[in-house]
Amino acid sequence: MTQFSIEHIRQAATRLQGKIVNTPLLSSPQLNELAGCTLLVKAENLQMTGSFKIRGALNKILSLADHERQRGIVAFSSGNHGQAVAAAAKQAGCHATIVLPTTAPKIKVDNCRWWDADVITYDPQTEDREEVGMKFVSERGMTLVHPFDDHSVMAGQGTAGLEMAEQARAGGHAIDTVVINCSGGGLSSGVITAVDHAFPGIEIFLAEPEGGQKMARSLASGHPERNPAGAQTLLDALSGPNTGAKPLEVLKRYAVTCLKASNDDALHAMAVAFRLLKIVAEPGAAASLAAILNNPGMFSGKTVAMVCSGGNVDPALFRRALANE
Amino acid sequence: MTQFSIEHIRQAATRLQGKIVNTPLLSSPQLNELAGCTLLVKAENLQMTGSFKIRGALNKILSLADHERQRGIVAFSSGNHGQAVAAAAKQAGCHATIVLPTTAPKIKVDNCRWWDADVITYDPQTEDREEVGMKFVSERGMTLVHPFDDHSVMAGQGTAGLEMAEQARAGGHAIDTVVINCSGGGLSSGVITAVDHAFPGIEIFLAEPEGGQKMARSLASGHPERNPAGAQTLLDALSGPNTGAKPLEVLKRYAVTCLKASNDDALHAMAVAFRLLKIVAEPGAAASLAAILNNPGMFSGKTVAMVCSGGNVDPALFRRALANE
Repeated sequence: MTQFSIEHIRQAATRLQGKIVNTPLLSSPQLNELAGCTLLVKAENLQMTGSFKIRGALNKILSLADHERQRGIVAFSSGNHGQAVAAAAKQAGCHATIVLPTTAPKIKVDNCRWWDADVITYDPQTEDREEVGMKFVSERGMTLVHPFDDHSVMAGQGTAGLEMAEQARAGGHAIDTVVINCSGGGLSSGVITAVDHAFPGIEIFLAEPEGGQKMARSLASGHPERNPAGAQTLLDALSGPNTGAKPLEVLKRYAVTCLKASNDDALHAMAVAFRLLKIVAEPGAAASLAAILNNPGMFSGKTVAMVCSGGNVDPALFRRALANE
Repeated sequence: MTQFSIEHIRQAATRLQGKIVNTPLLSSPQLNELAGCTLLVKAENLQMTGSFKIRGALNKILSLADHERQRGIVAFSSGNHGQAVAAAAKQAGCHATIVLPTTAPKIKVDNCRWWDADVITYDPQTEDREEVGMKFVSERGMTLVHPFDDHSVMAGQGTAGLEMAEQARAGGHAIDTVVINCSGGGLSSGVITAVDHAFPGIEIFLAEPEGGQKMARSLASGHPERNPAGAQTLLDALSGPNTGAKPLEVLKRYAVTCLKASNDDALHAMAVAFRLLKIVAEPGAAASLAAILNNPGMFSGKTVAMVCSGGNVDPALFRRALANE
């Protein structure tokens, strides 16, 4: 296995050229005042399917051989990855089966079906999504598009970091800190590799849901760790059960500080993004903004880049986020 | 007086280069399905100060002589123009006084003050904003930045149309229809001039609030018309009392169809933009999307460009828009 590097990400960028959205890097003087730093927000909620996930999914699917694509694709996902695989498969002309938890927001289920994918549900309290998904691989010869533990997927997600670095430079900014929402580690490993290559020596922070800090524990132990059984969070996009060995291997190369966001922190950050950036952030996407707003001393005066990783949130929950404003 | 033309807009684009945001042109396959057309949405809610208005304000202020800027700027506005003038004045290093109705959303008042402008309020039921604003011009030698009835302002707003045409081309789209939110006519006159220059012969629609269709009446009579006294709408950004002679002169050159959006239509369109575009649209900004969704036969199969003109909406009203979803 080759070591994951910036070259994987550059190849992904070439492969994805013209097939995904180069999302804007947003900023707001009022938000900078509130956060006490210069904040650059890569708006991946404006990406196709409403999250960054199509970058990795499409890069993976386009990397397959024709005969693999013809047998079909399977994915398990807390939601955003599923939609992304469904859309990427449709774009690549192959068929997708998506394995979703019964607890996934309705918007995420509907969106998978909109892209002509088959949706299979499982009970996250009693079944393992990976096992459910792997049945399709072994029984039907489908290819699994893993949500994070795959170099092609990590490289695709890393293209958001390449763009972010280019956009920051074009705007006259030198990034000195990144804060990345983290679940399995696909986005963070890719984006950090890209941004640290462009701006060597950046400070690196991850943002995880309070009570579900599996990457913090993985970095501490040196091995992929699982969340405690039954851990609950509103940050559903960051609620997958475990981290990935391949992303962890990359993250271990850097000095990484892990921060956490509570449900209330994330809901408040969603309201801030509503008010000052005019974008719809889902709870998991607001984790990094929440972590920044909660730890102002860590970021004071810095130029901080983050990814607003998705915007797929049920209206009722968004209304709740705005209720205290 | 020279005739307003694409040259004014090109000069404005040169003047504004690097000083404003080239906002993204968003699209969504699901939205296209819902609307029955290919919809390209220029997201000016992501512009500085949360609306397109800074384009015209900054172009006007940068066009002034130094001694005019030194005496200060005054603006009257239902809100977005006021914030934009406040921010543009700060960027240009001069002082602004903003005349706002007592009914303006709090977010718009706060944002003017954030940019160090003085805020003066008037009662829209009993006072004329233009008279209040003109006192500062006559008594203190300030320069009025009119919200729409000024070629420099119209040219600035038109730069959104220039960008929109370039972005559409870059994405392989030929625009054949535009639908523009209309109040005084500054945005529509500028954008239509720019887009019709790039794609000659486009079909042109304006979207106005139901019960406040002053531009429809102006185009019918050939003269600037006022709304009926006491007309109420949630679409506050389109609720100014009158249209402008200069924008009307431009709009009269084209075959223009005027559509309307009710409060409920606009609230629904805000929810659609939330769900499918992941952006925060204010009610007035959602008028054109509402008009498109309400009149599918008019747009079937077309490539339709619109401007999401602003995102400055109070949380309570946004919650109301999501309440029925």
